[in-house]
Amino acid sequence: MSTIKLPASAATERVLALTSQFKNSSIANQTPNQATMSVPYKFHGWMGLDKASVEGKMVWQEFEPKTWTEDDVDIKVTHCGICGSDLHTLRSGWFPTTYPCCVGHEVAGIAVKVGSNVKHLKVGDRCGVGAQSGACLECEECKAGKEQYCQKVVGTYNSKWPDGSMAYGGYSDYCRTNGHFTVKIPDGISNAEAAPMLCGGVTVWNPLVHNGAGPGKKVGIVGLGGLGHFGVIFAKALGAEVTVISRSDAKKEDAMKMGASKLIATGTKGWAKEHARSLDLIVCTISDPNMALDDYFQLLRVSGEFIQVGAPEDKFPGFSAFSLIGKGIKFGGSGIGSPADIQKMLEFVAEKNLHPVIEERPMSEANQAIVDMEAGKARYRYVLVNEKHAKEL
Amino acid sequence: MSTIKLPASAATERVLALTSQFKNSSIANQTPNQATMSVPYKFHGWMGLDKASVEGKMVWQEFEPKTWTEDDVDIKVTHCGICGSDLHTLRSGWFPTTYPCCVGHEVAGIAVKVGSNVKHLKVGDRCGVGAQSGACLECEECKAGKEQYCQKVVGTYNSKWPDGSMAYGGYSDYCRTNGHFTVKIPDGISNAEAAPMLCGGVTVWNPLVHNGAGPGKKVGIVGLGGLGHFGVIFAKALGAEVTVISRSDAKKEDAMKMGASKLIATGTKGWAKEHARSLDLIVCTISDPNMALDDYFQLLRVSGEFIQVGAPEDKFPGFSAFSLIGKGIKFGGSGIGSPADIQKMLEFVAEKNLHPVIEERPMSEANQAIVDMEAGKARYRYVLVNEKHAKEL
Repeated sequence: MSTIKLPASAATERVLALTSQFKNSSIANQTPNQATMSVPYKFHGWMGLDKASVEGKMVWQEFEPKTWTEDDVDIKVTHCGICGSDLHTLRSGWFPTTYPCCVGHEVAGIAVKVGSNVKHLKVGDRCGVGAQSGACLECEECKAGKEQYCQKVVGTYNSKWPDGSMAYGGYSDYCRTNGHFTVKIPDGISNAEAAPMLCGGVTVWNPLVHNGAGPGKKVGIVGLGGLGHFGVIFAKALGAEVTVISRSDAKKEDAMKMGASKLIATGTKGWAKEHARSLDLIVCTISDPNMALDDYFQLLRVSGEFIQVGAPEDKFPGFSAFSLIGKGIKFGGSGIGSPADIQKMLEFVAEKNLHPVIEERPMSEANQAIVDMEAGKARYRYVLVNEKHAKEL
Repeated sequence: MSTIKLPASAATERVLALTSQFKNSSIANQTPNQATMSVPYKFHGWMGLDKASVEGKMVWQEFEPKTWTEDDVDIKVTHCGICGSDLHTLRSGWFPTTYPCCVGHEVAGIAVKVGSNVKHLKVGDRCGVGAQSGACLECEECKAGKEQYCQKVVGTYNSKWPDGSMAYGGYSDYCRTNGHFTVKIPDGISNAEAAPMLCGGVTVWNPLVHNGAGPGKKVGIVGLGGLGHFGVIFAKALGAEVTVISRSDAKKEDAMKMGASKLIATGTKGWAKEHARSLDLIVCTISDPNMALDDYFQLLRVSGEFIQVGAPEDKFPGFSAFSLIGKGIKFGGSGIGSPADIQKMLEFVAEKNLHPVIEERPMSEANQAIVDMEAGKARYRYVLVNEKHAKEL
């Protein structure tokens, strides 16, 4: 899979305007202050200060990381994927965000400090953390390897650690997180490619592998964005026949390159009826409170499953009971994945030599990158690069 | 399980008024006319002539059964359960009904004519047919033993056979149906008890057995009506711990007698939060377009399933994507069951010596029975009895 390049953005002036704060407190200029910190680095990140931050108004400033424990890892951030959740959170779309907030939960880097209780990592290892940074590790779900459904989840950002300190994400130079949720990046996967898999990748990986995507199965992926493109690549590599379901044919060529064999355009009249009962499993990555669920359900074969991973800010619209009862289908949801799920996915990706379609953006231009992301320009996942740190790889 | 008796209805006058048509063309008075029929009996049934029939205005009259083929069976009806679908259909609740319509799809009786292609039945056998009477028997679903999801389903009533003749149900003296969908009633189950299992029973049996109800599982049954009471009895017999979810505590004693260990009253403030994450599987038998799905989903444990079997006439209301995504749960539907499912259920019921809680009503009083059913008086399933035919058992 070759990387599909975006045309160079023409909005240079806007980029410069938005990143002026960054220049004044640049990563490059930071001065370690060992008097006030137990580590020879400070933590800085792009902070959203209010809802307007989603318009490209994050501010680069220092933050106080969680209190260090021997269960923790400090990651020198080299890369951070831009996830739709970052935008939802910056604008308080799902629920009120606690500002200041440093988003980014597809964090890849180098371990620069590893707590003594963390056995699978050592200083210098390439590693990363996804959307989840904490859980109780004692409840039934945690013990069953479903930490993502623990009731004491700590998110990688906009979340509080049990000691009351805030969790800050990976639009930053350093990220302090919990070792249990920090995965080692296997040889054969670059940090740039690993980053967006830590949330976006595993979010579609999990419903695919846990709902039978494989040889002989027909899998539909709704939406060819960041998540959707992982869906196509993974489902194809798992052996399934893949159909992309998108508003138009615009991304058909890309879909085919990624491994799809068909594209259903929902802007075409009669699309649902035409392709009725053709898919075993649909993974839906779009967030649309007006989606015509009855139409999507038509695409499923008997006993098929439609798994939602994109989270709309509003409720789902109503749909007919007969859509479910008439074919014995299921409408499910799936949230990210456990550290073990992430590790399995990364190993599969390395083994199959898969490559996401990413575009690297300088972390200094994070504000413009989120504006472009919001405008739907990402093809297919933006990855912020902390160029100074990335050189150390 | 002892039969719970209803208090005798006081509405005698209404019963008499409504059944006057029946008296004038009573089952008892029919005259076989061998000149016009190839069998020594005519077919009569309670016909709904328009939407008002649901108010107890069905009319007893002769109907023309499907054209005989050697795949068919004529059942001398001894019993017919009253299903919620009968009411939905009589009032054109789901979609416009083709009148005249003879409802009833929990039909038990005696085989009086058996086509030469029907190998599992002989004249004199006790047998029955549920909600489905036909399918193509050639498609993928039919071959997979999921005939109920065939696209060429012929319903037992309000449905057309491939030759264009109408399908008429079991509020009748004779019912002509397809042998593939006619099951033999095992020794140890009376026709009266078998009848309501042919639709109501298997409708809840299927989601229970196909979604893991068994030892160590906590199963919730929403609604303790005809379907729900089967849910409790079956889930308990399958080894699960059973919780009934009902509007109030009114049916708690009955629920416990049937095998439930708990009742959650949805009329109680905070019910969903109080019992959050307590159930593995919920089978929902109620038809309420305003149901608070997010609340019901709260009851599920991680990876739990909520299977809808009651079909509301309107759409489901909207609900939050986070309800599904936050716990990796699934909202599914299940429609009746295949002939093989019905046979397995009946064998299980015979083996475990299970007994539904039914109230027998004379078929001559079918109009009053549906009025009482609509009023929610059934405890827990009405079964119409053709007394003359039942005497032959």
